[in-house]
Amino acid sequence: MSDSKPAGRTVLASTIAKPYIDEIEHGVRELTFTPTVVGLLANDDPAAKMYATWTGKTCEAHGFRYQLRTCDKNDLEAALVTANHDPDVHGIMVYFPVFGDNQDQYLQQLISPQKDVEGLNFLYYHNLYHNVRFLDPPHNEQKSILPCTPLAMVKILEYLGVYNKILPYGNRLFGKKVLIVNRSEIVGRPLAALLANDGATVYSADVNDIQQFTRGDDLSHTRHKVVELDPEEYSVATVAPRCDVIITGVPSENYKFPTDLVSYGTTVINFSSAKNFDDDIKLRAGLYVPSIGKVTIAMLLRNLLRLIDNQAIRDRKADKT
Amino acid sequence: MSDSKPAGRTVLASTIAKPYIDEIEHGVRELTFTPTVVGLLANDDPAAKMYATWTGKTCEAHGFRYQLRTCDKNDLEAALVTANHDPDVHGIMVYFPVFGDNQDQYLQQLISPQKDVEGLNFLYYHNLYHNVRFLDPPHNEQKSILPCTPLAMVKILEYLGVYNKILPYGNRLFGKKVLIVNRSEIVGRPLAALLANDGATVYSADVNDIQQFTRGDDLSHTRHKVVELDPEEYSVATVAPRCDVIITGVPSENYKFPTDLVSYGTTVINFSSAKNFDDDIKLRAGLYVPSIGKVTIAMLLRNLLRLIDNQAIRDRKADKT
Repeated sequence: MSDSKPAGRTVLASTIAKPYIDEIEHGVRELTFTPTVVGLLANDDPAAKMYATWTGKTCEAHGFRYQLRTCDKNDLEAALVTANHDPDVHGIMVYFPVFGDNQDQYLQQLISPQKDVEGLNFLYYHNLYHNVRFLDPPHNEQKSILPCTPLAMVKILEYLGVYNKILPYGNRLFGKKVLIVNRSEIVGRPLAALLANDGATVYSADVNDIQQFTRGDDLSHTRHKVVELDPEEYSVATVAPRCDVIITGVPSENYKFPTDLVSYGTTVINFSSAKNFDDDIKLRAGLYVPSIGKVTIAMLLRNLLRLIDNQAIRDRKADKT
Repeated sequence: MSDSKPAGRTVLASTIAKPYIDEIEHGVRELTFTPTVVGLLANDDPAAKMYATWTGKTCEAHGFRYQLRTCDKNDLEAALVTANHDPDVHGIMVYFPVFGDNQDQYLQQLISPQKDVEGLNFLYYHNLYHNVRFLDPPHNEQKSILPCTPLAMVKILEYLGVYNKILPYGNRLFGKKVLIVNRSEIVGRPLAALLANDGATVYSADVNDIQQFTRGDDLSHTRHKVVELDPEEYSVATVAPRCDVIITGVPSENYKFPTDLVSYGTTVINFSSAKNFDDDIKLRAGLYVPSIGKVTIAMLLRNLLRLIDNQAIRDRKADKT
């Protein structure tokens, strides 16, 4: 890395999370009870254990109660059902992978949507893909939950000024070209859909191919469509230099996004826990967010408060009838 | 024009000018006298007459006094010197062209810099080109004036979110590609310099060629440099589709910027009094500003208040000594 002074700025997740954390702490103080998150740990991965400890500390720092429950993987389903039925448990997280196969998905979908603070239920993904914002049409009182990481990315892009507030709501990414290197079902693909639904042209790359998500050039569609791009013409190398935003989420310490593919002034965000960029990215990027974990956990807590709000709305309605 | 609904938004100059007008009206009320603008009209052009009438009405609507002085072109120099020396005149405008040759430039430079509300003095252009913000280094109490139209464009780009406030001050256009179709000495060339000084990559096109203004890819220079681009490779047609912002100022009713060169979501601004875009631009542009006159006149009045402030600072200093 040369000793030139960067023309842009590195923005820390803690800075972006701050106003949400303030809002969350205020929300917790307004409640008559302490919201409780249960973390279910059924693997021996020390990284998962560390992540669980960190989420626990974060929850308690902001006024929530956190209980870590460890169990054997074959007891996880029972522990999950118990937590689902326990009225004193408001949010549930499971630290995956457990079995490392489709059984993990079964377990993930077993978390009650009313306690799914990570927003991983198919219901929430469906709403995200279809641009559905409420759980109770036509009343539209109960807002849908969004998966934590894609939601955190939206908040980050808002903070960074990539969402342009002057444009009509829903079209605030019009004209923005975004490359996302990751197409996992948990983050990459829903994120591509979310940003395309807000008006961006999204290039979604995984190891095999590159796809384009848009609502059409002129945003005449109400939700995104996906086009498989010709690999002869389109690749990360040809697309990256034309993008306003580059987002990576490659879970490997060995992977580095090539700095020379990044045009000067580009907004660069890494959501992988691995460092996907070399430090010289700071001399290229306009805005660089090296990690996003603190925004993601803020969104998790924000989701929890929203789940509690939705429950209160349902309780009020039940009382009336 | 098809009947599709535009995905972007047309933004009127009056909307952008509003907060500046409020600030200006407040500033005028704080003064112990009514600031007076003198307009000198020495040509028979009915358009100039109309423009003079409009500036007069605008000045008076916002608490200023406006005097139109008409004279023969050969008496203009004397009228100008009289206004320069009159302590009751605070701002002077001359409606050009008068002679239509270099004599007009001589007359323009004869306007006292202390009354040059349009910011046309070479002193102010020099400061703009060299990124000099104050008139009295090292005290830096008296802010320099900027030419009205380039200044209006900066305020418009700020309003539209093209300037990104999260980036370090001075680099807020980092990563933005801007095409300016006009390289007049009054607007196009200084505007290109101003935007490049703020971090943009500017393509400045006139009928003959295309130039690039930047502070270097990584903004390592403190002021812009200009590169003549190879016309075999660079033209409005090749550059426009890659730009985030397209600004036109072609003073001809017959000229239309080709809509199909504008990428969807581009910010589009016309500063010519002629309409440089067909209406179908609204189906392409993210943000479209069809004219900017009301912001320009707001900047003229803002400059006048700044000239008055600077005079007050000089008067206070003279009293002390």
